[in-house]
Amino acid sequence: MSRVGRQTFVYDNPVEIASHVSYVGPKEGKGPLAKWFDVVLEDDLMGQKSWELAESHMLTQCVEQAEAEAGLAKGSAQAFLSGDLNDQIIASSFAARAMQLPFLGLYGACSTFVQALVVGGALISGGFLETALCAASSHFCTAERQFRFPLELGNQRPPAAHWTTTAAGCAAIRAGKSKGGLRLECGTIGRVVDLNITDANNMGAAMAPAVCDCIARHLEDTGRAPEDYDIIATGDLGWVGRNILMELFHRRGLKMPDEVLVDCGASMFYKEQDAHAGGSGCGCIASVSCGMIMKRLEAGEWNRALMVGSGAMLSPTSSMQAQSIPGIAYAVAVGRNE
Amino acid sequence: MSRVGRQTFVYDNPVEIASHVSYVGPKEGKGPLAKWFDVVLEDDLMGQKSWELAESHMLTQCVEQAEAEAGLAKGSAQAFLSGDLNDQIIASSFAARAMQLPFLGLYGACSTFVQALVVGGALISGGFLETALCAASSHFCTAERQFRFPLELGNQRPPAAHWTTTAAGCAAIRAGKSKGGLRLECGTIGRVVDLNITDANNMGAAMAPAVCDCIARHLEDTGRAPEDYDIIATGDLGWVGRNILMELFHRRGLKMPDEVLVDCGASMFYKEQDAHAGGSGCGCIASVSCGMIMKRLEAGEWNRALMVGSGAMLSPTSSMQAQSIPGIAYAVAVGRNE
Repeated sequence: MSRVGRQTFVYDNPVEIASHVSYVGPKEGKGPLAKWFDVVLEDDLMGQKSWELAESHMLTQCVEQAEAEAGLAKGSAQAFLSGDLNDQIIASSFAARAMQLPFLGLYGACSTFVQALVVGGALISGGFLETALCAASSHFCTAERQFRFPLELGNQRPPAAHWTTTAAGCAAIRAGKSKGGLRLECGTIGRVVDLNITDANNMGAAMAPAVCDCIARHLEDTGRAPEDYDIIATGDLGWVGRNILMELFHRRGLKMPDEVLVDCGASMFYKEQDAHAGGSGCGCIASVSCGMIMKRLEAGEWNRALMVGSGAMLSPTSSMQAQSIPGIAYAVAVGRNE
Repeated sequence: MSRVGRQTFVYDNPVEIASHVSYVGPKEGKGPLAKWFDVVLEDDLMGQKSWELAESHMLTQCVEQAEAEAGLAKGSAQAFLSGDLNDQIIASSFAARAMQLPFLGLYGACSTFVQALVVGGALISGGFLETALCAASSHFCTAERQFRFPLELGNQRPPAAHWTTTAAGCAAIRAGKSKGGLRLECGTIGRVVDLNITDANNMGAAMAPAVCDCIARHLEDTGRAPEDYDIIATGDLGWVGRNILMELFHRRGLKMPDEVLVDCGASMFYKEQDAHAGGSGCGCIASVSCGMIMKRLEAGEWNRALMVGSGAMLSPTSSMQAQSIPGIAYAVAVGRNE
């Protein structure tokens, strides 16, 4: 419960990850990270009447599985922290309705999963909750319809555009410290940074400055170096945004080893899958964290990871009004107990 | 930091309200509560190019005033917790951009202000933050355009419809216990409840069951009775929803004195102002709490208030897809230090 520096706090009373579950769609299930996901959907409509209901259903299944794997009776978790890209976060609120759980709706665009871990970890470490389900989702078809064009139009996509991942991730967290288990060490709340990018097809560029600011602040607050992490996983900068981030680090005089910084969006698809700059969406870092990252930490392959969620805080209305895109980022450090 | 019952926690390490500021539009400034608001706007466009920018500007001014009145240097608050009804909460994220503060975006529809106090209070009581700015806003013109029809159409409104208030409220909270100051006592996280209301022009009916559930749970968790509060202020049920809520209490066997339960939405306008069921929007309970309620508590007229924010978790998309409207509510108890 101690505070370190301006934007970071440490979870002194131990918080551990009791379970973690990742769901992805068919396209993501053919990408380089396929083997790490728990469930690959065969049909991304999941038998529902609309893409929006499908996304909410995917999220519900993912969260219910995480609750069960954490050894919790159905509906007994003390809080559900979640958000998504749909207007008024209906994928999450409809999932909360299905599960009848006390609900905290969050919105940090594609950073929402990490935001949920940062806030949920504090509520547990502070003694306010004993268990919480931290989650986020996104769906290619809901995001395309809402932010860009109806799929049926078959619009061309510019090279800097992202492919919104169809994915959900949920980590059940609780008070405690099991031998060999994963613990939340500390969390950093980012600031909104806006360097005047107005192109909604270049979200990597819009988010990179906020990610740079958040990581630099996290390292300064904690006195850690990039090498103290086996992996620093950014959310969904894609190839374009990752290159800009490395340039921003360089200008700031922060030495970031190329092999430490992995972008979840840039890693989600093979080049041949035609996803351009890479994956995006709240489900991107959520599914990669709950899949590959937490599994490699548990296996002892890695000892400590920093997950950095990044969000582009635009809306269709703000884009139409020619507003620039504010970026935000949150960071949470996860280690393995002795 | 202790937990009481299933959904309520108590802020054992004291959290106090350092300042509270309310802004409202011209119509709200002619209503029954006019004298309690700090600022009544003459022009609800505030010289901005769009209603969305006006809402964000109103929120920014309100939050900056609260920060200054709390004795904090500009931009020195440790976190800004806020949300609004705009898609992707752009009023709040654009305000966060203007103020360069670490930002936690929240979404609980019209319950968001109370959600921010519940979460912010925990982050302070738990020692994670020393100061936080908890806020929310709404604007009649942004909400009409987004959820209903362009204003220029001059559509008729059914009797159960609400009038989205143009308003913002911000409470600066901090660790500590000043003599005679206001303290956050405890917070309750509500569950999503949906009794199958599908009419987006009857949000009072959609939200009342969640409000009933949250208040009943709060009283059960804390062992308090309605009479332990001088006022139980619900967010924006309006006259229609308030009547349903009293009926739900009756069926549940919970005796709620009529004079204790005040609905902020039902109190916002005179009948002659043609607002039908009453006011709504995130700014409704935010401005009434930061205006009338906290001022009467400080004056010693009241000793303890329960603020119950309520939210209708619908979106234009979910309405078009004929989905019912999930309701949610959060409660926070505020008392006065000796």
